[in-house]
Amino acid sequence: MKKTIEQKQISNAVINRLPRYHRYLGELLKSDITRISSNALAQKMSITASQIRQDLNCFGGFGQQGYGYNVALLYKEIGKILGVDKSYNAIIIGIGNLGHSLASHHMFKNRGVNLIGLFDVNPDIVGTNVLSLQVKEISELENFCHNNRVDIAVLTVPKAETPIMCERLAELNVKGFWNFSNMELELPGYDVQIENVHMGDSLMKLCYRLTQ
Amino acid sequence: MKKTIEQKQISNAVINRLPRYHRYLGELLKSDITRISSNALAQKMSITASQIRQDLNCFGGFGQQGYGYNVALLYKEIGKILGVDKSYNAIIIGIGNLGHSLASHHMFKNRGVNLIGLFDVNPDIVGTNVLSLQVKEISELENFCHNNRVDIAVLTVPKAETPIMCERLAELNVKGFWNFSNMELELPGYDVQIENVHMGDSLMKLCYRLTQ
Repeated sequence: MKKTIEQKQISNAVINRLPRYHRYLGELLKSDITRISSNALAQKMSITASQIRQDLNCFGGFGQQGYGYNVALLYKEIGKILGVDKSYNAIIIGIGNLGHSLASHHMFKNRGVNLIGLFDVNPDIVGTNVLSLQVKEISELENFCHNNRVDIAVLTVPKAETPIMCERLAELNVKGFWNFSNMELELPGYDVQIENVHMGDSLMKLCYRLTQ
Repeated sequence: MKKTIEQKQISNAVINRLPRYHRYLGELLKSDITRISSNALAQKMSITASQIRQDLNCFGGFGQQGYGYNVALLYKEIGKILGVDKSYNAIIIGIGNLGHSLASHHMFKNRGVNLIGLFDVNPDIVGTNVLSLQVKEISELENFCHNNRVDIAVLTVPKAETPIMCERLAELNVKGFWNFSNMELELPGYDVQIENVHMGDSLMKLCYRLTQ
């Protein structure tokens, strides 16, 4: 079984599918399924087996003729490619309804991301707890970032305030931004990675399928 | 300018990009930009001009050599393809933090979807208002669906309750499901469209990019 990971020429389309592979393989593991053929995985994921083989070949394979994929190994390796083993630290800025919902979600833990801080400006929210974290005043941000390694900031602040907040955090050496303010946030001049979430796009895809 | 819409052989990849075109064109319209070349649009969207031309050709073009795209026309036509002009009616089941956040968002209105009902089981939440809508007890669902056309149900209920709720709604003739319960919801035997949202996938893409 080839295990060399060659990550040179990987297209965005493949990267976009990796979290989905990771999710399905995690479900298989939970169901105590230890190996699976590309055909069976393809049927489960509603894609073609050749697509799966092609995608995973980008990373040097993982499959074995006549055996299929070792679920635990493939799950672990895809997790590594996705950085699940890096233990990134994250904070959430803006603990309104959406921020609160994200903060109380298992999504961070399940993906190897440690949620270490919550920040807001609203005095009614500052000081309250979400799970084991107490929401801090945003003025504590600089101090917090100096005393803790913060890799990722989740932004659920109003659109107009997002670019300023992003720059403030980039100055504090935060490198990753998960932005929910429904805008194409960019920060030229900084070496940062930004993932802009547009939930409405998914609603539109549903409307498209209903229309057909 | 060709305006015939041929929607036969359109790949999922193109469909996935359409909401993004719609979003960017909407932003251009807001900035009073009336026409744009495929090169300028490509630069703005960080994709190639040939990709744009190829995508829009699936629907019969819209561009004119030497003129570029008429922003308002293209926005309207892509909106039509996506069903923005259909005025779908939607309800949200589960008005916890996420449901509340979705209910107070402009995303529905901006996409031509009318939010007409909110439902929950929690007596502390039933009877409260989110914008102009009062949250109803879930036992009122059948009555509500008989008296109103409901096209889309937004599901923000616990994972374990999602399939039962989906079937209950499908029996009430709801055809579209926007599912936030972080599971691959399926409803065999019913003619429904389901869009499963996995926000964590987007977090993993960010982690991947940070890892590179």
